[in-house]
Amino acid sequence: MTDTLTEAERNELITPLLENGWGFVSGRDAIEKTYTFSNFIDAFGFMTRAAIWAEKWNHHPEWSNIYKTVYVTLTTHDAGGLSALDAKLGAKLDKLAGG
Amino acid sequence: MTDTLTEAERNELITPLLENGWGFVSGRDAIEKTYTFSNFIDAFGFMTRAAIWAEKWNHHPEWSNIYKTVYVTLTTHDAGGLSALDAKLGAKLDKLAGG
Repeated sequence: MTDTLTEAERNELITPLLENGWGFVSGRDAIEKTYTFSNFIDAFGFMTRAAIWAEKWNHHPEWSNIYKTVYVTLTTHDAGGLSALDAKLGAKLDKLAGG
Repeated sequence: MTDTLTEAERNELITPLLENGWGFVSGRDAIEKTYTFSNFIDAFGFMTRAAIWAEKWNHHPEWSNIYKTVYVTLTTHDAGGLSALDAKLGAKLDKLAGG
């Protein structure tokens, strides 16, 4: 079982993501971001690298892909909201996307 | 520019997909299917193989992934509806998924 973030942890861990293009999802304790790449190969290449990290950390995004765009939502299902894993995976996705 | 399917082609090419778990999307000339795998590795492995075919054929799905589930929608944007490419990609996805 994973714990949801305390208010202090939320300020520390989630705020930097909000400053880097992430936003809260309406009606859920989750964050989302849209990544746009040059083409499908770059978009799916990003997903592939992210997928391996997600599996390694046993924490997986909800995500969609339409051609060169990837829409990501992060939340921790077994915690019922945002956990430290979401902050960690969000920061990793930004790094993998080069942003 | 890709042509949308004629009624005869639709019967010939789309009907077999409808008999294999595909359904029409409400409000769009598109088809959708949900694939469920054993785990994330299998789900994303399917997506990876599909992605390479999609790029090779220059025809890409709209798709989402949540853990072991992959939701796929097929339509041909530049045709404004279903084309022969959707039938071809749909059949390939079924084959890649082992179904």
